[in-house]
Amino acid sequence: MASETTTKGERTRAQILETGLEQARTLGVTGVTVGSLAEATGLSKSGLWSHFGSKTALESGILDHAAERFTEEVVRPAWREKHIRRRMSRLFDCWLDWGARHPSGGGCVFVGAATELDDRDTPSRDTLVRIQRQWMETLAGVIDRGVARGELPAGLDGRQAAHEFYAIVMGFYHADRLLGDPEAEARARATFDRLFGPEPGDEG
Amino acid sequence: MASETTTKGERTRAQILETGLEQARTLGVTGVTVGSLAEATGLSKSGLWSHFGSKTALESGILDHAAERFTEEVVRPAWREKHIRRRMSRLFDCWLDWGARHPSGGGCVFVGAATELDDRDTPSRDTLVRIQRQWMETLAGVIDRGVARGELPAGLDGRQAAHEFYAIVMGFYHADRLLGDPEAEARARATFDRLFGPEPGDEG
Repeated sequence: MASETTTKGERTRAQILETGLEQARTLGVTGVTVGSLAEATGLSKSGLWSHFGSKTALESGILDHAAERFTEEVVRPAWREKHIRRRMSRLFDCWLDWGARHPSGGGCVFVGAATELDDRDTPSRDTLVRIQRQWMETLAGVIDRGVARGELPAGLDGRQAAHEFYAIVMGFYHADRLLGDPEAEARARATFDRLFGPEPGDEG
Repeated sequence: MASETTTKGERTRAQILETGLEQARTLGVTGVTVGSLAEATGLSKSGLWSHFGSKTALESGILDHAAERFTEEVVRPAWREKHIRRRMSRLFDCWLDWGARHPSGGGCVFVGAATELDDRDTPSRDTLVRIQRQWMETLAGVIDRGVARGELPAGLDGRQAAHEFYAIVMGFYHADRLLGDPEAEARARATFDRLFGPEPGDEG
């Protein structure tokens, strides 16, 4: 239910970004065009332009919207687990779902955008880098806290482990989505379990 | 020096593919167009079409050409090392260079193509999958041989380790090229060393 302070313009913008994100999962964030959005939303191209003003602003809008969705669909469910080793397991499951078993189909918009934008010099690249760095910092921080609390293996370094976690997820997406490897999840899980050690029993 | 049996058509095709690969490193393999190739090679668009006939055939040609280059620049130097643990180290170095420090700039054409093509149903996707599967099989085979010879840690599984090696490289490209993380290589190397164990001394 939209809050009373949500304007019609804000609702339209949110609807455009949701459609844009769905398209970006398959076409890549740079593949979403005002034409494809107009067709999918029924809005006019000029109406769409009035919300963003430039292609790179549209890309940035979609990426920021994707980050909000990622928080809702991946981070929030994981953070409900108070024990940080269990939180890592929940995060792993939700993160795999996000990029390979999402109800709207397609893949991880961030992984796609990374290779689309890494050689460009656009504001949307800056948006992507900001989102990804923030996420790596968040992940490193929670891993360090888990080690300090004795809930993750002693000696694990937050930033190193966050880097490795990200690589495990990228490796899974590649093996699952491109290669169709039926062992993709088992392989990713084996690496993940080696990184974070065994999960505690329920009494843990 | 071209062999006497190399026709002019074959030489032109090779020149187109080399230019196409350079462009694909930055634009992605689906971003290379007959127009961009015509401009860079000085050939006519109709001349270019006569070599490939379709966009997806051009993409497949570039990917197969990239696989040849990968063999020359990454696999061949690594395979000169007879001891398989040392071969893995050389492979690691060359593979990082391939996608992040290549003289022609840009990134790994295969990693880019994976996210460009994974949701498409085109012959060029089949080409990419064939190349990637073959490479994973080759890598798994040499790792298994290294274990059998006692040159890699006992208990290492070839396919699991090949999957992890690929993920390590992808994680490096992402942290280095997108995030500009100065620790990217050190982080990848730490994971790699944990996977394959210490390198033997020169007397090994």
